[in-house]
Amino acid sequence: MNSVGPLPPDPLRDFFFPRGIVVIGVSRDPTRLGYGLARNVVRCSPAPVHLVHPEGGEWQGRTLHRAVSEVPRPVDLALLLLPAAKVADALRESAQAGVRAAIVESGGFREAGEAGARLEAELAAVARECGVRLIGPNCIGVVDTHLPLDTTFLPPRDDRAGTIAFVSHSGATCSAMLERALLEGWGFSRVISLGNQADVGEAEALLSLAHDPHTQAIALYLEGIQDGERFLAAARGVAQVKPIVALKVGRSAEGQRAARSHTGALASSDRAVEAAFAHCGILRAHTVEEMIVLARGLAHLKPSSGPRVAILTNAGGPGVMAADLLGEKGLELAQISAGTRARLAERLPLAAARGNPVDMLASAGAAEHAECARLLLEEAATDALIVTIVPPPMHDVVAVAEALSPILRSAVKPAAVCIMGGASAAKARQRLREAGVMECGYPSEAVLAISAAWRRTAIQSPRGESLAARSSTVGGPAREKLAPLSTGKPEAIAAFELAQAIGLDCPAWQFAADEAQAADAAANVGWPVALKAVAQRVAHKSEAGGVALGLVNEGEVREAYRRMRLEVEAYAGKGAWQGALVQAMAPAGQEVIVGAVRDAQFGPLLMFGSGGKEVEGMGDVAFALAPVTLAEAEAMLWRTWAGRRLGGVRGARAANREAVLDALAAIEGLMLTHPGLLEFEVNPLIVTAHEAWAVDVRGRIEEGSGHR
Amino acid sequence: MNSVGPLPPDPLRDFFFPRGIVVIGVSRDPTRLGYGLARNVVRCSPAPVHLVHPEGGEWQGRTLHRAVSEVPRPVDLALLLLPAAKVADALRESAQAGVRAAIVESGGFREAGEAGARLEAELAAVARECGVRLIGPNCIGVVDTHLPLDTTFLPPRDDRAGTIAFVSHSGATCSAMLERALLEGWGFSRVISLGNQADVGEAEALLSLAHDPHTQAIALYLEGIQDGERFLAAARGVAQVKPIVALKVGRSAEGQRAARSHTGALASSDRAVEAAFAHCGILRAHTVEEMIVLARGLAHLKPSSGPRVAILTNAGGPGVMAADLLGEKGLELAQISAGTRARLAERLPLAAARGNPVDMLASAGAAEHAECARLLLEEAATDALIVTIVPPPMHDVVAVAEALSPILRSAVKPAAVCIMGGASAAKARQRLREAGVMECGYPSEAVLAISAAWRRTAIQSPRGESLAARSSTVGGPAREKLAPLSTGKPEAIAAFELAQAIGLDCPAWQFAADEAQAADAAANVGWPVALKAVAQRVAHKSEAGGVALGLVNEGEVREAYRRMRLEVEAYAGKGAWQGALVQAMAPAGQEVIVGAVRDAQFGPLLMFGSGGKEVEGMGDVAFALAPVTLAEAEAMLWRTWAGRRLGGVRGARAANREAVLDALAAIEGLMLTHPGLLEFEVNPLIVTAHEAWAVDVRGRIEEGSGHR
Repeated sequence: MNSVGPLPPDPLRDFFFPRGIVVIGVSRDPTRLGYGLARNVVRCSPAPVHLVHPEGGEWQGRTLHRAVSEVPRPVDLALLLLPAAKVADALRESAQAGVRAAIVESGGFREAGEAGARLEAELAAVARECGVRLIGPNCIGVVDTHLPLDTTFLPPRDDRAGTIAFVSHSGATCSAMLERALLEGWGFSRVISLGNQADVGEAEALLSLAHDPHTQAIALYLEGIQDGERFLAAARGVAQVKPIVALKVGRSAEGQRAARSHTGALASSDRAVEAAFAHCGILRAHTVEEMIVLARGLAHLKPSSGPRVAILTNAGGPGVMAADLLGEKGLELAQISAGTRARLAERLPLAAARGNPVDMLASAGAAEHAECARLLLEEAATDALIVTIVPPPMHDVVAVAEALSPILRSAVKPAAVCIMGGASAAKARQRLREAGVMECGYPSEAVLAISAAWRRTAIQSPRGESLAARSSTVGGPAREKLAPLSTGKPEAIAAFELAQAIGLDCPAWQFAADEAQAADAAANVGWPVALKAVAQRVAHKSEAGGVALGLVNEGEVREAYRRMRLEVEAYAGKGAWQGALVQAMAPAGQEVIVGAVRDAQFGPLLMFGSGGKEVEGMGDVAFALAPVTLAEAEAMLWRTWAGRRLGGVRGARAANREAVLDALAAIEGLMLTHPGLLEFEVNPLIVTAHEAWAVDVRGRIEEGSGHR
Repeated sequence: MNSVGPLPPDPLRDFFFPRGIVVIGVSRDPTRLGYGLARNVVRCSPAPVHLVHPEGGEWQGRTLHRAVSEVPRPVDLALLLLPAAKVADALRESAQAGVRAAIVESGGFREAGEAGARLEAELAAVARECGVRLIGPNCIGVVDTHLPLDTTFLPPRDDRAGTIAFVSHSGATCSAMLERALLEGWGFSRVISLGNQADVGEAEALLSLAHDPHTQAIALYLEGIQDGERFLAAARGVAQVKPIVALKVGRSAEGQRAARSHTGALASSDRAVEAAFAHCGILRAHTVEEMIVLARGLAHLKPSSGPRVAILTNAGGPGVMAADLLGEKGLELAQISAGTRARLAERLPLAAARGNPVDMLASAGAAEHAECARLLLEEAATDALIVTIVPPPMHDVVAVAEALSPILRSAVKPAAVCIMGGASAAKARQRLREAGVMECGYPSEAVLAISAAWRRTAIQSPRGESLAARSSTVGGPAREKLAPLSTGKPEAIAAFELAQAIGLDCPAWQFAADEAQAADAAANVGWPVALKAVAQRVAHKSEAGGVALGLVNEGEVREAYRRMRLEVEAYAGKGAWQGALVQAMAPAGQEVIVGAVRDAQFGPLLMFGSGGKEVEGMGDVAFALAPVTLAEAEAMLWRTWAGRRLGGVRGARAANREAVLDALAAIEGLMLTHPGLLEFEVNPLIVTAHEAWAVDVRGRIEEGSGHR
């Protein structure tokens, strides 16, 4: 993401710019999907459409070819709506006729069980073998409202040409969105129903949309992600040129993952998705309606150069509602200058509120709306404008909308209008929409849209210095260092060796296999010491009585060793005991956790937060997907109380933020260069004014990957 | 709230059931509000309407009386729309004519500045003096769709009679909501625009609505609360019989309050509102659209007897969207029994998902929808049903809606239908609405509505045992005990005396005015000891070097005393030092905070959370408005990590939850019986397995209230 190179060529070019289209699976029965498909594509296609039916004959005056081989060439795109068992053969025949892209809309594949999954695998193999790109199966096709092209079997619609592209794992949601847009008077540029993704997935859809000149913003509905790495690469690049908003569902189906570390236990797949979206610059929507508002905002609003919002209203209520919601969306109320306030005063009655929100009162008509909007957009202290309107009893709200439109359209700052009401409000909103102004029905929607215009600016700004740039151990230690984690050496020992290898400061330590070794080790590392059990089947040492702190002489060490062994064996069984780690006591300081876990989809996920035994319970943690920039790492710290505390709070000295960032950088480097390492965590990292000590460390390596 | 007695009589009876209505301020000019007002009330009134105009004559064939004194009696309600300066006189004349209730719709009062505020005070005085109840000024009147009665000046509407009452501080929002309901096809029972509330406020509106047989749910839009005590009393009672949802704005305008304790600093007025709503059983909406969905859900859904929701869908996407949102609204996916799954299987294709969500696939028609909905409602393991539908290509979605309606209407469990789509979806939704079924356009709305049906059950259940019932010191100590907090005695000392008076265990302590006294005191309280500065102008002792812990002998105590005095004097000035508190060290345990702050509107607000120096930063706190039930106090604990930890976590023994509840009960009792006490806080309360020690205590008493 550091710099976005030239985009790869459009992988879906043949789907949207075919020289000819063949429909295989046409039906003569108007109640069948095969009829709807033929009807729609004949009606909406930028290229000649050829219909295939094994019986031949005619369909609405057009020839029905008996086979795809009889279709006049060139034919680049095939639309298939046949019983699942027949699709692979039809695809092969299509390829022989020159087809390079196919949309399979039939169901009965993976979604229908094992037999279907086998048919899907076969279909994918045929596509690969014949060099045909495939959308589907089990999808409703694609739509381009500008070409126009409609490859769906849905009831006929007159789609409005728009600037939002929608890519969806759910065909029904595509259909609902197309209808919703028609009802509400906005429009899509393209809709891509991905279905089972036997071949084409989200990544190709995104790359293709980057090339579409009509698409200004991209909305994604995701039920899973096919290939995390490809998705990240595509989304990172595309988000720099076209803003992306995504609704990702499936949280309710999420299982618990096995984890050895706190980081692993806390890093749910939903947190990984959250971090991945942040990493790529994808805005996350939590509901469909949020997705629509964000996408409309991104498609229609100019980018905002800051978070300062002016609110103009003709009624107190909606203005306050908007003001209340700014903060939680990362926006703030602009401080209107005295000059602008004076100019507003000239145009408004005495009782009007000239602060922010500017309440013009219900008496304000079209001229007041236009004039005040212009003043607020010209005010240097505002970055964006929200206008909230309730249709006033004495004025025509449509006239108000018409007066506002040219001002808002021509402004360089983003402006959204919310008109709360009924039929007259709907009519006024329609005028605004037709004039290209972002409008909505509730203050919360206007705030959400403006927040998108501001967040987009940050996303599309050049990325800063990487965190790795500050690490002296970039690339981490040689791979051999990982071996101990999967060999006979106790994990605790191996983890400490690894921590030291990547440059973390660990209090002096020695492994002791018996009581006498422990006493010697204590003398070597220096008093006072801590004793920590090294044992198998003990996930949390303190639960098993496996930690003794502040031992000040040999007697205490010996006694602690004996007692600890008994307790640990009682907890984990006789064979579990391996020995103890004797460690110099670290100085007092702030206890934090720094760790990383390798997400199966998205790769290393870094975590920072309040450390100690209670990490999961406190939940004071933040995640980011590696590699992070320095700014992102610092933002991670700020999102947690632990990170804010590093600056020093009441009576406590400032701790060493730099050392924490160094530790994060070292762990990031280790994870990025050692794919077999699944988890690595320092908890606590004790941070003092000048140092940071890795007091406890754990790691987990992929089974059988010790020698990768 | 422990038991709801009979409701007081309807305070707004004369507004809704007048024997005659007089309109003062009629206009002949159709562009004036005075025209609209006359038009609307003549059109919609359950009683004879009389019009007054100083020039006399006729208005649309009706007599214009020259003065209210000429109007035929009885006339109970006056509608006034005159210049502000003329309203008080007109009100007096109306009262002389027998009027007992008046709605003043004119502006130009408090909202317009000082002169207006004086006019408003005069108007209120006249109303009181004449025994007239007053709604307004600066409002748009009231509407009852069943009588019908329309006292607004809004453009003419044909309101649909409904079951939701709306009470609002914003007249424009009333107007927008009335229009929105018309557009969307639902309806209000009553709308009450309160305006400036010179007399009638939210409390009376709520009480009146409790009497209205057509109102099934109440929505409130609040910009402030007129009288916290009256509001609480009214809302508590009314919420038991009619569910209430409220949108409270004004968070953005909230200032910082002066506070001496952590509790005070954290208890924002928004948190107080949150606690007050929870206390009364008011559901809080965060946006208008949430308010509408919650109110519609409460008005149309049967109460739910549990949180277990079945989801029935004809498309994967919307079903998963709904499932994903259940958790954050306190709901869960029901576990459908094997028997029901088998019966579903009989009616569905093989590829259908019979888990939960039950995905019938797009092929499902009206009969499948009805049958599966019936099975899921009959399933013992479900408490509620959500049906999500995307209009299927092969079926008429209106027919689906018609088939579902009788099943959902007659069920004893609540059921909400979400139809995502365009025109056909809108038509199907209308059918459901007409049949009295809760419907919406997005899965999130269905989840929100069902969550309201479940929360209402908890709200309207009998309240359990009060927390106070467990306190041995109910009522708190005699008032004299508070005196020290406002007299010359150092606050720290007085606060400890108070803590002991209400039965909290404090480690043994003595006040020491000099080094020698400190040494003696230490010997008396027992080693080891803590030394804590008693000084003026020191808000947080540790910041000023005013805390020394674990002193083990006389030398250490003397040395600590000398050093502390120097540091505190350097921090707070020479005269600040008063002495030191010598305190036996408490045993180790979990540090929590228990406190209370008196909210100016709502009274004592209790707080519990993670204690120590970092209370504000960690923000691990929960609030509840006193008096609380035992269940509410326990819920407060559960909302915090500190409270969940009391049960014992990894390696730590369970702490004494009972002692924490006792401390909360004692502090609640103290606050309830001593109105002059503004803040009282124990931080930390150190909780061990069997005890709880109040290690530091602070209090603040109202200036000049020491002897109350």
